[in-house]
Amino acid sequence: MKILVIGGVAAGTKTAAKLKREDPTAEVTILNKGEDISYAGCGLPYYVGGVIADRSALIVNTPAKFEKLTGVAVKCGVEAVALDRAAKTVTAKNLSDGSESVYSYDKLVLAVGASPVAPPIEGVNLKNVFFLRTPEDAVALRQAAESGEVRRAVVVGGGYIGLEAAENLASRDIRTTVLEMAPQILPGFDQEMAAWAEDRLADQDIMVFTNERVTAITGEEKVEKVLCENRKMKADLVVLSTGIRPNTKWLMDSGLDMVKGTLLTDLHGQTNDPAIWAVGDCAMVHNLITGAPAWSPMGSTANIAGRSAAVNLAGGESEYLGVLGTAVCKLPGLNAGRTGMSVAQAAAAGIDAESVVCVLDDKAHYYPGSGEFIIKLVAAREDQRLLGIQVLGKGAVDKMVDIAVTAITMKARLADLANMDMAYAPPFSTAIHPFVAAVQILLNKLSGKLVSMGPADFQAGKAEGYRILDVGMAPAVTGAPYLDFTALPAGLEGIGKDEKLLLVCAKGKRAYLTQNRLRALGYANTVVLEGGTTVNGTELVK
Amino acid sequence: MKILVIGGVAAGTKTAAKLKREDPTAEVTILNKGEDISYAGCGLPYYVGGVIADRSALIVNTPAKFEKLTGVAVKCGVEAVALDRAAKTVTAKNLSDGSESVYSYDKLVLAVGASPVAPPIEGVNLKNVFFLRTPEDAVALRQAAESGEVRRAVVVGGGYIGLEAAENLASRDIRTTVLEMAPQILPGFDQEMAAWAEDRLADQDIMVFTNERVTAITGEEKVEKVLCENRKMKADLVVLSTGIRPNTKWLMDSGLDMVKGTLLTDLHGQTNDPAIWAVGDCAMVHNLITGAPAWSPMGSTANIAGRSAAVNLAGGESEYLGVLGTAVCKLPGLNAGRTGMSVAQAAAAGIDAESVVCVLDDKAHYYPGSGEFIIKLVAAREDQRLLGIQVLGKGAVDKMVDIAVTAITMKARLADLANMDMAYAPPFSTAIHPFVAAVQILLNKLSGKLVSMGPADFQAGKAEGYRILDVGMAPAVTGAPYLDFTALPAGLEGIGKDEKLLLVCAKGKRAYLTQNRLRALGYANTVVLEGGTTVNGTELVK
Repeated sequence: MKILVIGGVAAGTKTAAKLKREDPTAEVTILNKGEDISYAGCGLPYYVGGVIADRSALIVNTPAKFEKLTGVAVKCGVEAVALDRAAKTVTAKNLSDGSESVYSYDKLVLAVGASPVAPPIEGVNLKNVFFLRTPEDAVALRQAAESGEVRRAVVVGGGYIGLEAAENLASRDIRTTVLEMAPQILPGFDQEMAAWAEDRLADQDIMVFTNERVTAITGEEKVEKVLCENRKMKADLVVLSTGIRPNTKWLMDSGLDMVKGTLLTDLHGQTNDPAIWAVGDCAMVHNLITGAPAWSPMGSTANIAGRSAAVNLAGGESEYLGVLGTAVCKLPGLNAGRTGMSVAQAAAAGIDAESVVCVLDDKAHYYPGSGEFIIKLVAAREDQRLLGIQVLGKGAVDKMVDIAVTAITMKARLADLANMDMAYAPPFSTAIHPFVAAVQILLNKLSGKLVSMGPADFQAGKAEGYRILDVGMAPAVTGAPYLDFTALPAGLEGIGKDEKLLLVCAKGKRAYLTQNRLRALGYANTVVLEGGTTVNGTELVK
Repeated sequence: MKILVIGGVAAGTKTAAKLKREDPTAEVTILNKGEDISYAGCGLPYYVGGVIADRSALIVNTPAKFEKLTGVAVKCGVEAVALDRAAKTVTAKNLSDGSESVYSYDKLVLAVGASPVAPPIEGVNLKNVFFLRTPEDAVALRQAAESGEVRRAVVVGGGYIGLEAAENLASRDIRTTVLEMAPQILPGFDQEMAAWAEDRLADQDIMVFTNERVTAITGEEKVEKVLCENRKMKADLVVLSTGIRPNTKWLMDSGLDMVKGTLLTDLHGQTNDPAIWAVGDCAMVHNLITGAPAWSPMGSTANIAGRSAAVNLAGGESEYLGVLGTAVCKLPGLNAGRTGMSVAQAAAAGIDAESVVCVLDDKAHYYPGSGEFIIKLVAAREDQRLLGIQVLGKGAVDKMVDIAVTAITMKARLADLANMDMAYAPPFSTAIHPFVAAVQILLNKLSGKLVSMGPADFQAGKAEGYRILDVGMAPAVTGAPYLDFTALPAGLEGIGKDEKLLLVCAKGKRAYLTQNRLRALGYANTVVLEGGTTVNGTELVK
């Protein structure tokens, strides 16, 4: 059995290696365009920042080492240019001399990856304008950052790689600005969560401009300015992180099913040609919740999908049910993680979702280094199935995300998760785990024990007609009357029992306690502002 | 409705506060023996070490503050001494003047907690012999530790509190020794995992002696020596952490069902008297896997069970299905976490379990601060349901445990967990998440793709008759022939195809790859030593 793998970074090498373990008799060859295989693409931003000191640390395996470890043959510097499905051959060009060779296969694995897309503007080829996709990109970018000539950097694109690049440039005392065409950074977060993160980045001197399209990059010898629709800014260095496109142009007329250039696969990783598999950034997988095709150009997906495909290629049986759009990102003083569906994504999928935003301690509040999680939990209203989580905070947001991934994978309903016996000791967590607490809060909201409004609804003006009451430990909301629920009923004079009251405290909990107490006193129209002043700020009264 | 709560630390305050929220008309009174309520029992070791600077940080709520926050009445300095179930009254003694009062109830909540048990030996009342159960204990212990007169400390008991006490004493440059009567520390871990942790503690100058019963504590004015069956040692300070006993002596003749002094409850938290609930360290809950009664004297359980009981007390419906024996503990340079069943516990429950020990990176190996997890994963052989995890490492063991808790709560089979879309970025995790990787390894073992032996079996002599081959990146196993699988078949001379071979590398992975390659060459009797030299050391050849 001859198996040809086109592409040898994450998905290609994983598939080939696992396949050889499953079927040592298989003849597996990788054709790779570049000279590096199996490099740590996700580590590149950290090489730029110097967190990872040496380039060698980015290279997981050299071709020679990989061949010896796996028994797979690797040919580098070879670019596939044509596929003949009837003949079961791939024609590939040797990039050093331009000669072409034809490779035959019994089964073909397309793991050709994706390449960065430059915005269609002038100046993208100026000196000190970089992509951040390959080790070479990272080396060039770091050299420029270390040259002493860069005071200001602009990162175009506020996705995860762009933000990681921004963090690492800023860590070198380079004044860094992020420009994002969309209304928000952090794709997959709901907008109010992303907005909160944008403010925190500004606190750390990384300015973020959203709804900002770059129109040109200008300069004489090298980049000097970035021009946008709404502003222009000086820049000594630009990182373009505006998206990637699958390297499938050569397959356009192949008859393989694609969506926007991405190869469609079934749960086995197979394309519409049963002899051809596709894995990694050039292939669609599936959304685990909806079953719909999903693009997940991530190192983690490449590895998991590649491993699963290899089992099938070797004649075994493995269904890869798909992804949840999981992502996590380290930012200065703030980590951001998410999985599953946001409220916006649930709406787009036609699912009636309920959500809650809450602020919870990430470990025992008295333990040094403790902080807060800003959590948005999303569940289906009908069956109360957990749909997604978004978490921001300086602590272990990845833990919160991984718990949610496990729960969503197992199709958990909120009630299944409300009493979990989680790991607790003060250096790690709180006696009621923040994930469990968030589940309980959303259950309270769904049952009506908590009547609340999220920051998004508040921003959308849904508190119109409500009187804001400051119900925190001490007055904090500018211009709002203060009410201490522990001293009720004093302080309620002049407030009618039918009056619409928006209760605001620091995090949301005290407002919930206040609502509970007020309800017992007959105040029927109170609404808690989720996230309190922590998420919404103190300037709430118009 | 009059509800009387006896005891006001974690479970009592949680139950009372939640109950008042659920039913604001309920008349709820807490009778509390001590003067502090609602203190952070789990924080005490960190107060001893000075990690938590001020005693005030340990007090979650004063009685007055709690009353105002919740509407619950609190009486402190009052000890319940008699229960009259027929009359529905509790008699309690005022500890300041010895007078007795009778309190009637419609419903009674027993949250009387537990108290430390001193070993039945002489010397436990000597100066500088301490328990670590209350804020007062912690204050006294810290005063002694800070006195400058303590050079050597002995902690009696190698459970979680004892080990946390040891860590915090050692952090003050006090030479600290842990004595444990049982064959191992870290209850709930399998023995070989605990033994590995014991060695790491020794590396950090905390000596651990297991199977070591203390026979006396001696000294003139204060403690000077601790005498054991096998040794005696100098000590300026002793911490007794040898277990706790529910404070239920006054209930012995009440007719309430108990096991070893612990009150039995149903899934609603109710005792055999429908008017009486029991929560916290004085009550049994249930084991989530087996449904059997389980004792879980932990702050986390107290809160979760108390909250659930409160819903029922208020007329709602909440079943608390129980605990998994989850625990996590910060030790010097090593965290330890576990949940569910160990192999020993599964065997005791009559479940045929399979397990694997593996060594996996806790984040991208090239990311600074990365380390290793030593993981033992346990699953039922029959249906491959995940039963438990044990994790040791300097990193986020709590994350691994919480994922397992979620999976076990959802009754996950290994196959459900093998492709999860976990959070990955280099500062947080690896492209294939260590939890997922561990699941895949155990699946490989169950399917026969991996044939391996755990450290426990190796220590038990089950590799008798096997020839040890050192198959690591470089020779490391003393006295074993070295084999580099990437250079096969060279090096196989003199090794028969039917020979029993134990393959040993650093972590287990390269031995697995070697096994795979050897199998293809016809070597049929190879076994991988799980955990490699990392867990088993390099002195393996007898």
